[in-house]
Amino acid sequence: MPSPQLPLATPFDDDALHEECGVFGVIGVPDASTFVALGLHALQHRGQEAGGIVSYHPDHGFNNARRFGYVRDNFTSAKVIDTLPGPVAIGHVRYATSGSRGPTAIRDVQPFFGEFAMGGAALAHNGNITNANALRRELIERGSIFQSSSDSECIIHLMARSLQRDIPSRMEDALRRVEGAFSIVAMTRTKLIGVRDPLGVRPLVLGRVGDAWVLSSETCALDIIGAEFVREVEPGELVIATAKGVESRFPFRRAKPRFCIFEHVYFSRPDSILGGRSVYETREAIGRELARESPVDADLVCPVPDSGTPAAIGFSLESGIPYAMGIIRNQYVGRTFIEPTEQIRNMGVRLKLNVNRALIKDKRVILVDDSVVRGTTSRKIKEMILDAGAKEVHFRIASPPTAWPCFYGVDTPQREKLLAATMSEEEMRDHLSVDSLKFISLDGLYRAVGETQGRNATCPQYCDACFSGEYPVAPKDMLDQGFEMKTTAAE
Amino acid sequence: MPSPQLPLATPFDDDALHEECGVFGVIGVPDASTFVALGLHALQHRGQEAGGIVSYHPDHGFNNARRFGYVRDNFTSAKVIDTLPGPVAIGHVRYATSGSRGPTAIRDVQPFFGEFAMGGAALAHNGNITNANALRRELIERGSIFQSSSDSECIIHLMARSLQRDIPSRMEDALRRVEGAFSIVAMTRTKLIGVRDPLGVRPLVLGRVGDAWVLSSETCALDIIGAEFVREVEPGELVIATAKGVESRFPFRRAKPRFCIFEHVYFSRPDSILGGRSVYETREAIGRELARESPVDADLVCPVPDSGTPAAIGFSLESGIPYAMGIIRNQYVGRTFIEPTEQIRNMGVRLKLNVNRALIKDKRVILVDDSVVRGTTSRKIKEMILDAGAKEVHFRIASPPTAWPCFYGVDTPQREKLLAATMSEEEMRDHLSVDSLKFISLDGLYRAVGETQGRNATCPQYCDACFSGEYPVAPKDMLDQGFEMKTTAAE
Amino acid sequence: MPSPQLPLATPFDDDALHEECGVFGVIGVPDASTFVALGLHALQHRGQEAGGIVSYHPDHGFNNARRFGYVRDNFTSAKVIDTLPGPVAIGHVRYATSGSRGPTAIRDVQPFFGEFAMGGAALAHNGNITNANALRRELIERGSIFQSSSDSECIIHLMARSLQRDIPSRMEDALRRVEGAFSIVAMTRTKLIGVRDPLGVRPLVLGRVGDAWVLSSETCALDIIGAEFVREVEPGELVIATAKGVESRFPFRRAKPRFCIFEHVYFSRPDSILGGRSVYETREAIGRELARESPVDADLVCPVPDSGTPAAIGFSLESGIPYAMGIIRNQYVGRTFIEPTEQIRNMGVRLKLNVNRALIKDKRVILVDDSVVRGTTSRKIKEMILDAGAKEVHFRIASPPTAWPCFYGVDTPQREKLLAATMSEEEMRDHLSVDSLKFISLDGLYRAVGETQGRNATCPQYCDACFSGEYPVAPKDMLDQGFEMKTTAAE
Amino acid sequence: MPSPQLPLATPFDDDALHEECGVFGVIGVPDASTFVALGLHALQHRGQEAGGIVSYHPDHGFNNARRFGYVRDNFTSAKVIDTLPGPVAIGHVRYATSGSRGPTAIRDVQPFFGEFAMGGAALAHNGNITNANALRRELIERGSIFQSSSDSECIIHLMARSLQRDIPSRMEDALRRVEGAFSIVAMTRTKLIGVRDPLGVRPLVLGRVGDAWVLSSETCALDIIGAEFVREVEPGELVIATAKGVESRFPFRRAKPRFCIFEHVYFSRPDSILGGRSVYETREAIGRELARESPVDADLVCPVPDSGTPAAIGFSLESGIPYAMGIIRNQYVGRTFIEPTEQIRNMGVRLKLNVNRALIKDKRVILVDDSVVRGTTSRKIKEMILDAGAKEVHFRIASPPTAWPCFYGVDTPQREKLLAATMSEEEMRDHLSVDSLKFISLDGLYRAVGETQGRNATCPQYCDACFSGEYPVAPKDMLDQGFEMKTTAAE
Repeated sequence: MPSPQLPLATPFDDDALHEECGVFGVIGVPDASTFVALGLHALQHRGQEAGGIVSYHPDHGFNNARRFGYVRDNFTSAKVIDTLPGPVAIGHVRYATSGSRGPTAIRDVQPFFGEFAMGGAALAHNGNITNANALRRELIERGSIFQSSSDSECIIHLMARSLQRDIPSRMEDALRRVEGAFSIVAMTRTKLIGVRDPLGVRPLVLGRVGDAWVLSSETCALDIIGAEFVREVEPGELVIATAKGVESRFPFRRAKPRFCIFEHVYFSRPDSILGGRSVYETREAIGRELARESPVDADLVCPVPDSGTPAAIGFSLESGIPYAMGIIRNQYVGRTFIEPTEQIRNMGVRLKLNVNRALIKDKRVILVDDSVVRGTTSRKIKEMILDAGAKEVHFRIASPPTAWPCFYGVDTPQREKLLAATMSEEEMRDHLSVDSLKFISLDGLYRAVGETQGRNATCPQYCDACFSGEYPVAPKDMLDQGFEMKTTAAE
Repeated sequence: MPSPQLPLATPFDDDALHEECGVFGVIGVPDASTFVALGLHALQHRGQEAGGIVSYHPDHGFNNARRFGYVRDNFTSAKVIDTLPGPVAIGHVRYATSGSRGPTAIRDVQPFFGEFAMGGAALAHNGNITNANALRRELIERGSIFQSSSDSECIIHLMARSLQRDIPSRMEDALRRVEGAFSIVAMTRTKLIGVRDPLGVRPLVLGRVGDAWVLSSETCALDIIGAEFVREVEPGELVIATAKGVESRFPFRRAKPRFCIFEHVYFSRPDSILGGRSVYETREAIGRELARESPVDADLVCPVPDSGTPAAIGFSLESGIPYAMGIIRNQYVGRTFIEPTEQIRNMGVRLKLNVNRALIKDKRVILVDDSVVRGTTSRKIKEMILDAGAKEVHFRIASPPTAWPCFYGVDTPQREKLLAATMSEEEMRDHLSVDSLKFISLDGLYRAVGETQGRNATCPQYCDACFSGEYPVAPKDMLDQGFEMKTTAAE
Repeated sequence: MPSPQLPLATPFDDDALHEECGVFGVIGVPDASTFVALGLHALQHRGQEAGGIVSYHPDHGFNNARRFGYVRDNFTSAKVIDTLPGPVAIGHVRYATSGSRGPTAIRDVQPFFGEFAMGGAALAHNGNITNANALRRELIERGSIFQSSSDSECIIHLMARSLQRDIPSRMEDALRRVEGAFSIVAMTRTKLIGVRDPLGVRPLVLGRVGDAWVLSSETCALDIIGAEFVREVEPGELVIATAKGVESRFPFRRAKPRFCIFEHVYFSRPDSILGGRSVYETREAIGRELARESPVDADLVCPVPDSGTPAAIGFSLESGIPYAMGIIRNQYVGRTFIEPTEQIRNMGVRLKLNVNRALIKDKRVILVDDSVVRGTTSRKIKEMILDAGAKEVHFRIASPPTAWPCFYGVDTPQREKLLAATMSEEEMRDHLSVDSLKFISLDGLYRAVGETQGRNATCPQYCDACFSGEYPVAPKDMLDQGFEMKTTAAE
Repeated sequence: MPSPQLPLATPFDDDALHEECGVFGVIGVPDASTFVALGLHALQHRGQEAGGIVSYHPDHGFNNARRFGYVRDNFTSAKVIDTLPGPVAIGHVRYATSGSRGPTAIRDVQPFFGEFAMGGAALAHNGNITNANALRRELIERGSIFQSSSDSECIIHLMARSLQRDIPSRMEDALRRVEGAFSIVAMTRTKLIGVRDPLGVRPLVLGRVGDAWVLSSETCALDIIGAEFVREVEPGELVIATAKGVESRFPFRRAKPRFCIFEHVYFSRPDSILGGRSVYETREAIGRELARESPVDADLVCPVPDSGTPAAIGFSLESGIPYAMGIIRNQYVGRTFIEPTEQIRNMGVRLKLNVNRALIKDKRVILVDDSVVRGTTSRKIKEMILDAGAKEVHFRIASPPTAWPCFYGVDTPQREKLLAATMSEEEMRDHLSVDSLKFISLDGLYRAVGETQGRNATCPQYCDACFSGEYPVAPKDMLDQGFEMKTTAAE
């Protein structure tokens, strides 16, 4: 029963991959929801469409607020925060899903809540449950009534039907039925719970501020509340934080971790720490590797802002070609432009980016971008650069060709819309009409993220399905719908 | 998990009983939701706080819209109606519940929807399920997840767990577990379903417009869409209307009907037809009976507007004392006055009513009101009348003393707040400091509604629990909470 | 430079005359704007489209708030009232003007404010300045910049250009240039000022509450704040209320008063006092006069609610035919129904009125209405009554035929749209297809309002231009636009 | 009569200078307001609080829309743009003024409109009229009524009182009475008019797209609509663009130009062209100059984002010290955070900036910022950097010490709040507790903007009053209020 929503018109934003979610939770401070609001603000890049917070207070019970739009616009005022009292709270930001699934209803905005016989629990996740459709069918057959189209609701219903006596055990029961990639934060009246799937595809970190415990998708959200980064939650781990400390359980069968390599390339914020290093430094290293792999003589190295910036700096440092801001991003472009006029919609990338004409004129320019998805933005940028009088345009891409969709919580176009799914590097260069186009190699990317030996082809250290087509978890629901995996898919 | 809501500040409205709901449904017209919107507009007096509509269209599935506020403000624009396409739709208006239960969340606004293995169904009801708490506990124990605090949701969950193969049969299964007073409208993709509880406490009528079938709480809502009044749905009857016609089932054990007598006194609109007569005529007859039972010499008969008007006209016609509008109602008072200033809140009844000073001065005035609940409004009106220079004030009340709470879908204060629960008629007269105060007798009321022999004490023809304390259905949840019934309670 | 506004869709409301404004002001209470909000709420019937309040506080200066919509929705919350501090305030409610002038911009909502060399002043008026266009042209020629299309702004500009040293004297200067019908409330930092035009066409009364002084269009707005009715402001009088008391000036040439007789018939609230008697009693007297002038044998006397009610009661009392509510008004119809669907718009009068079918069936019905403007509503009501099975329908109208437009602050259709401008009483009866149709005579109306000798044809005691075509003030701007007055126009 | 507004809570934004306005206008395209909306979007950095557009269409006259908030949120939808039809339009974005003057009322949002005897005109300006108070007093004395507290309204009233027969001549009349720094765009029904003050303090450029003419504060707004940059409007020039072409007038006494040097440092967008060079290149040159003037040994050069970025790149290129993003800006911080909770308000700069901890740790860091105003932000950034474990912190500032307020359209704190007004460079270094702090010299800045000989002390080539205290136009209103100029002030 989908409620109709206003279309989210972001015409020039559909040429990027989007993380679908960020999660955050706190236990042990008097006003947990304020901390969650700040944490979600720092995680806004992981989901701009909507957000939600649930809190629990002994006198006021569970309360929630779910809103479309930015955290800063919805969750910072006393008017909202005062309705979310208590010492434990969790929250979620999400991206608009696209394509066949249509716009999100507010009912689909997490966290979800369920009242069980032994009390309530709320839950939010980042990722995707690959057997959600099958689970849903089974649960409905047995009398569960779904209120949303979200994966997370399956977990709540599985928990409701568990015969275990406490909520963490019910959650273990439920998670053993679930397949896919997911990082979960959940809460009961007295516990903050975090879970990562057995492969640890999506990130989740544990932090501490005073006596309070924090769970967050990234460390940058620990910084904003002044929390100390304790450690990453381990793949397959379930942590339970209470007033007394943190308990750790491992409900799943152990597996080799396969963290999402694209978190390094694009999703995570440059000031977050992944694998003991700032994401910024990793991206600079990717740019250096790219300069070594695919050098070219030119006058300027320019990033496609903002995501190409660290790699462009790295490329400049390695190549010695001066770094310059040849493209300026209009910082007042946001998620909005709701229902613009036809003419304004057609402006596309111009509303967001402008070429620094006087700087670019008569120069040979290297443009560094993080990835090529559909290629539509790359093409428009190239036109703007040439229109401004550049002599040569060389694209350098800080990731290998994106040729396969992600089924683990990232919003990707259908395979046939991915430029790299249908064209070779040369065909893409011709399609974009640039003087040269080079992607970093998959091995080069592994080296840049710290795997000095490159990719272990028999047992890759990361999930790189979007580049390799090798899916570490079989995407069951998608296979049911006819998706064809590469024959060499890992098993 | 109640969402906080703005307080609904209607300071002078808490001294009346309020029907909690009105229901309406149509099948067989191209744009059913427009008809439902009109029907709900005509039933707005049965619930002013919120409304909801669900429709089904073969191409667009089930859609819903739920809003706080008036039907005219939410459900008449193309913008909303266009999101509710299809040939079958049901709707609901509800009153704010008061007291301990707190303000309503939008989640509690009906109709409710459930997706079953054989397709979806939506349901709305007027009334109260007296064993809802017990049912809810049991269902949660077995893994159902509730999304609202509404009674109706129990029915949906019971239906979800039924093993029957079609939705009407699942509804029969569910209804056999349910106790209380309820009139239900429900819908599937192809059926419009209506149910009245075995005693027929709450009203429900069947109408027809062209080839389409209509269910409505009252006939006045048939008039607005030009529908013909076919008949009342019978107590204990389940009707199923489809393209092919109307089918009738009787899933309950038969019982003697006990229709709510207060529908005649106050709830129903004067232009609705109950028992073959307009409610207006019944109220005029109540006024005549009152004039015969408790005559008094005076200059003017004035109604307390608007609900006392028909009885005042009857009193005037019977007594020969001229009818006059001694109190004028400000027609611009609505449900609103959201968050008024302290000073304005204190104005209370003055915002709504003003005495016709020049008319009243030096007159002996008979004031006719429909009922006395807490007595606070009566007291203020008396003061206004005396302040305007009236020589005498005589109250005549078109119902017996309201001494017991209703548990069948009417919002009444706790027993100790009911003036008649703690005072005799004489004490009330002294409390209100009026020259005389008379209520119609219970027998007189029965005569006025058409029972020429008066009330059958051993087996009353109506539910009159609010006057007599004799509850035809044991209020199980309330008894669990410690409510004490009269020892002479009917069983 | 008109700002576009949403269309105000009141399809069934254009068949009535509408007072364009109500005014209210207070000086001498700590929180004057709260009193003004209450006063405007009581005057809401004089203007439902928009309202405005200006207040002055020594520390915070002049503040204003102007809003579309009802007083209760805009001016009762602390959020708004707190922005309007201080011991003196004035306010205004206005009706949407119709026809060629288009919907109102918020810029046109009064009160208007001007900063003069000796301090600021704000002003609001009820009525119409008949030479406003000419004055506006002259002022623009001399360098004044208009911000609105409202008449009132002329007065402010004339005051700005006066060479007098104090604001009341500047106002006198300005008023001597102005022609028309107007009741004004104005304020400076320390004064509350009221003015009625020389003929006293529009009402204005003076009241007192404690040490504070009040000006209001009607006495009903004194009642709501507990103020005592002191006296009417006299035609041609300018009153200045300060902390010290009330001063009276007469800046105009004296003239014979010509109060608007339609205030008695329709505009004023029945609980207001006009000429020492409640308007309700006057209307009851009109009904009695009508019964004497045009009796008819019938079963029921029914009002067209709500405006026909007092006259219907009078008709019933005089004729002995029982009074009954044959037509029920849906009290939830308001000014809104913004942008309803086509189908709902076509429902017209049915959204507002329903016939009491069971009561009306097989009866001979006398319908009493206050006036006939275009006749469209009368026609629909007649159809509804016959459709419900009435045997005969007799219309009795509590005013003479409305055959001429008003140019003194009442919104009337163009002359050719007035049914009585083109048809005789018999033609109207045939047009409406009713069994009989009778209007009260002009002399009868004068008698009912207290002129025992009837109308003085050579020097009428009231302005009755809408019935007689005799305009007491030449409508200069309208004559410039080609309007043709009756040759017998009074001069 | 100021209308109260919500407080704009941008706690960490008050430590920067803010351009108060950007202006844009087009004539000769069918839908001029769309172009103006795009132009204003590109100029949003010049004013984020509010915006307004006026257009003229022969059939629909002048129309306007004024809104608080971003252009993208208010002026891109068809709903708004459709209300602004026609081939000529002008627009304005403005910054919130701070301090004693309080928040802006919507009445103060430009463009302003006046209806004159020969037709209407609208006008918007960037800058400040230094004798506005005196002019306003005189105009009120003579009967003009002001509707706003804006300078621009003086010009409209002076135009209204001119005896000239056409609007451009009236504008010349008006401008001869006006002192200060201002760039104006204005429009009549058939003309687009641009004016720069005699010193040309504020920017204004002329562009062309097809047959249409464009006026804009900066060239970056020409790029977004695909317009060609024709030339700067000259200091003291009045240009009139019509269907037939551009006419040029010089109504003022000629003077030596004194363009605002801070436009190079901070106000203008890096992709705009000033003096034939991109602002980006100028800022890079400032960074290089700064590296030459004040070198220091360190590991990283980091910008304070985003305004310090180009100078930091220049510093890195000149010094050879690697450039790195040591501070990450949260791109989801906007103008909003309306009414945040106390706790969130106290987060201040952390909501906007985060240190790249893993990168900064144990490093010697050079931070490059554009300017130091109050020093509060610098102090917080220093603390964050040290907190992250930096070994040394060296501040390098791309402008000389800001020691004097601007009276020419830039919002600066009162003099005593400017850090450099009360402290020497050494005192500031100690106050900020940094290892070193160096500002570029005034001569160095002149060299970097292209004056190879540095500043001409007897007749400076730019307005640099904020650094030098030498005001090229006497700030008359401020002197009246007691502001003390430097004794050496240029005259």
